[in-house]
Amino acid sequence: MKVEIIAIGDELTSGRILNTTSSYAARQLFEAGYEIHAMHTIGDTPALIGEALKKAINEVDAVLVTGGLGSTDDDMTNEAVSKALNRPTLPNLEILSIVRAHLDEITSAHVGQLEKLAWLPEGAEVLNPKSRMAGYQLIHDEKPIFFLPGIPSQMKQLLSEHVLPRLATWHKDHYLTTYQRIFKIFSLPESEVNRRVGTLELGHAAHIGYYPVFPEVHLSLIIRDKRNRSAEKLFKSSCKAINTVLGDAIYGYDRDCMESVTGALLLRAGWRLAVAESCTGGLIAEKLTSIAGSSAYFLGGVVAYANELKTSFLDVPEDLLRETGAVSRETAEAMASGIRARTGADIGLSVTGIAGPSGGSPDKPVGTVHIGIATAEGTWATHFRFSGDRQQIREMTAQTGLDLVRKYLLQATGR
Amino acid sequence: MKVEIIAIGDELTSGRILNTTSSYAARQLFEAGYEIHAMHTIGDTPALIGEALKKAINEVDAVLVTGGLGSTDDDMTNEAVSKALNRPTLPNLEILSIVRAHLDEITSAHVGQLEKLAWLPEGAEVLNPKSRMAGYQLIHDEKPIFFLPGIPSQMKQLLSEHVLPRLATWHKDHYLTTYQRIFKIFSLPESEVNRRVGTLELGHAAHIGYYPVFPEVHLSLIIRDKRNRSAEKLFKSSCKAINTVLGDAIYGYDRDCMESVTGALLLRAGWRLAVAESCTGGLIAEKLTSIAGSSAYFLGGVVAYANELKTSFLDVPEDLLRETGAVSRETAEAMASGIRARTGADIGLSVTGIAGPSGGSPDKPVGTVHIGIATAEGTWATHFRFSGDRQQIREMTAQTGLDLVRKYLLQATGR
Repeated sequence: MKVEIIAIGDELTSGRILNTTSSYAARQLFEAGYEIHAMHTIGDTPALIGEALKKAINEVDAVLVTGGLGSTDDDMTNEAVSKALNRPTLPNLEILSIVRAHLDEITSAHVGQLEKLAWLPEGAEVLNPKSRMAGYQLIHDEKPIFFLPGIPSQMKQLLSEHVLPRLATWHKDHYLTTYQRIFKIFSLPESEVNRRVGTLELGHAAHIGYYPVFPEVHLSLIIRDKRNRSAEKLFKSSCKAINTVLGDAIYGYDRDCMESVTGALLLRAGWRLAVAESCTGGLIAEKLTSIAGSSAYFLGGVVAYANELKTSFLDVPEDLLRETGAVSRETAEAMASGIRARTGADIGLSVTGIAGPSGGSPDKPVGTVHIGIATAEGTWATHFRFSGDRQQIREMTAQTGLDLVRKYLLQATGR
Repeated sequence: MKVEIIAIGDELTSGRILNTTSSYAARQLFEAGYEIHAMHTIGDTPALIGEALKKAINEVDAVLVTGGLGSTDDDMTNEAVSKALNRPTLPNLEILSIVRAHLDEITSAHVGQLEKLAWLPEGAEVLNPKSRMAGYQLIHDEKPIFFLPGIPSQMKQLLSEHVLPRLATWHKDHYLTTYQRIFKIFSLPESEVNRRVGTLELGHAAHIGYYPVFPEVHLSLIIRDKRNRSAEKLFKSSCKAINTVLGDAIYGYDRDCMESVTGALLLRAGWRLAVAESCTGGLIAEKLTSIAGSSAYFLGGVVAYANELKTSFLDVPEDLLRETGAVSRETAEAMASGIRARTGADIGLSVTGIAGPSGGSPDKPVGTVHIGIATAEGTWATHFRFSGDRQQIREMTAQTGLDLVRKYLLQATGR
């Protein structure tokens, strides 16, 4: 079953807002077994909206439209649908009564402008009237067309609670199974990943894709087939072969991210981590704490952006800073052992470097980074020279720091 | 002059990768005065690529295609172009010689697979052969078609260095001027922004758009006209009127972000900030240090995720933590004054709260946040109850913390 996704909004075609909803919807639909024929983004221009919609209905089995359903003057989707599909807009009484009960937060007056939300193209079936979220289904040429708000949180909720369940019962013939695994790879270039995996003979049914997602490489293995034993067997043997040629450059799978994988290893080992960050300015701590439950293994840390803080919070000797500089192997080691000692963590991780654009020198150019690790076994630091802009260097540094902790844990816990 | 953008890649239509390049290109083109007719995303399927390309050439004046130019087996753009536009692929000798000089990092053998990069559709003019980036221009039906790599950093560089300059000299008739301002608004809901701005009579030529960009609202004012005094005057008076009705809920304009605006105010005041973060886990420090030059006004801080760190690094009394809990006005105040005293900063900012999904109670539900500020004038904390998921609560907390510092600076420095 083929689906097209149409996102609407001048904020998208002018590039002011990044379109995240189409990607999200594509992923959900793809994982549920649908094929995404195409995704389109167009402005709040009724004629273009109508044309794209009619073309999509012609080409595919279901259409998902997001955006332009709100009450402000630039929301034009309903008007466009009405014209293109020849369905006059009619007031939906349930929504109208909800809207009329809505009072302005400031003036307590009835907000007349919101009544626009109740006028929908003829035949519109509102997905969830009680939720106060715009969103409806039309059936046109015997195909389901879904209209969702462009606001990501609302779109996501309506997609999973209403669109996917309705689609699943619409046709039965899309029940192909998708066997899919994403291999998350760090510290190997894409060309090398391709070279190693290219030598494997996985057979024609196994579809391999390579995706550089800075700073990582993602490799996807997809097998689409009716659910059966031979497809399952091919999937398992392909996974095994890929794991063998890429080894521990694969840090995780599917929805894993570096911070969730490193966190899970810390949790299993029963060890607690603390960090001392200079050039990453809190990025490592932010990543670690973005995972719910991270307080079980992450104590916190110090963002020692100024040198005074390296001394006062991490006991890095002033002499050392003067002699070797803040960006040095010695300072990284002192920061790592300092944060470990001060917090009582099992592992102390430190980073110090030059993220740029200024601050580099011939001796220590932008991208020079030292990453330190302190454990009960000892303290050491590794020197890196990353390239890219400020954000890329910070991202590479944070990711590499977490990867070093991951690799240490794998080795120390004998996995 | 109308432009269409076509992004190619299975990683995009399956939603595995968020398409950021199309948005970026749209923004650059829009700001340079072009109209974006539509943006399409399609998979690595030659037939669909060809069809989309032919349709675009028919509809608009220039086309930008990104992705599918690499050397791995799933890169199919050149093949698709060759077929659709009836231009056989021919080897580009300059690229071929560069590729042949490229040795494998591991085996030092010649990498034959990369030769694919040199085979381009007839008529292709390579944008920057020396850069080792794929990317070329075709002229078809007297229209310029640009093919760029899907890798964001490469796409961006080629777009600004080659595509925009070439487009600018292509036609002269697009020299309409775009007067545009984005008003960046925080702490007012979209409906209230709409209500206030809706009462202004700005005239028909002033185009207003409202965009909720969590956690902010962006309002765009656009006037497109030939460069002339009356358009300029209308633009200035419209800006002034919008500023008047929204007041200090407007924190900045255009490419400003909260951390750059707050940072600029700190710099002008000559004050230095330090932060003590609990639930945001480093997010505030990370935002502040993402701005180049932030070391002039940001000292660093402590991510006191565990309570022990609140005591050892911030001198929050253990008794206080026991009596009022880590999420309390008193703890926020103690954290703010603790980080200020320990670092010698002029302003100490602290946050403590419950980001969820677990950890809430009837008394202190998920979303409960206290934000503290310590200055030479004294220390105080404000209580908030945010809604949303873990990331949203963290984002709202970080943004609100920075906004409180901004408002304090505006008031303290008399602006």
